[in-house]
Amino acid sequence: MKLGRLNHIGVATPSISDAVAFWRDTMGATTIHEPFDMPEQGVKVCFVDTPSGPQIELIEPLGDASPIRAFLEKNPAGGQHHVCFEVPDIAAARAEFEGMGKRVLGPTRIGAHGTPIFFLHPRDMGGVLTEIMETPSEGAHWSN
Amino acid sequence: MKLGRLNHIGVATPSISDAVAFWRDTMGATTIHEPFDMPEQGVKVCFVDTPSGPQIELIEPLGDASPIRAFLEKNPAGGQHHVCFEVPDIAAARAEFEGMGKRVLGPTRIGAHGTPIFFLHPRDMGGVLTEIMETPSEGAHWSN
Repeated sequence: MKLGRLNHIGVATPSISDAVAFWRDTMGATTIHEPFDMPEQGVKVCFVDTPSGPQIELIEPLGDASPIRAFLEKNPAGGQHHVCFEVPDIAAARAEFEGMGKRVLGPTRIGAHGTPIFFLHPRDMGGVLTEIMETPSEGAHWSN
Repeated sequence: MKLGRLNHIGVATPSISDAVAFWRDTMGATTIHEPFDMPEQGVKVCFVDTPSGPQIELIEPLGDASPIRAFLEKNPAGGQHHVCFEVPDIAAARAEFEGMGKRVLGPTRIGAHGTPIFFLHPRDMGGVLTEIMETPSEGAHWSN
């Protein structure tokens, strides 16, 4: 395993529309992508670009079974939820983390950038919920 | 305010030496800087480079009054602690955030990269403890 690019940091929010206003008006973000639903993940997603490349991924609960509801119950204002690093080959990365005894949360699935992703249990990752995603093809890099 | 570069994400840890081993052996980081003490901030600090530029700032409590002790009591394994964005002019940024009614935590002081920084209260920042730092001069950028 070689550390890949930090693709994004995931920030949970009770309201993407409020969070978009915050990142635009308070933080001065100039490129904020269109929010979209990911019903199979139970989240609404909105990417905010930063000048250095990594994005902020705003995530709002979608549906009653959203996996971020519990996080927002503990953190009603929202907060830092996960970090996401890129790998060249998702299957190889999954096998490598599993070989190290790291708990992978659920199956590998298609993430918000359209490439395969999986999550690793924060208890095995220094307390940080960690998403691993296969690097998008060049054209799609750091875009929606 | 125009959103600046994401300089680093701060990750609290009970043990920098364990965290360095994790980032080297599990995550495959190839550039890990020498840890150093910041007694005036109550933390020991270690920067880990990512290929995309932003660093991981590992922070371990230093001294009994360390401001991250409470965080680690709640999150004994460690976890995501703050995010840090760069600005060209720290005084102008501080005035702008204060003008928006955002709570600045303490005085502007010299941060781990040797430039002035301040922190903003997470309750005013979508639940995210946010550090604002003046961009280091070109030569110092993303280095220790």
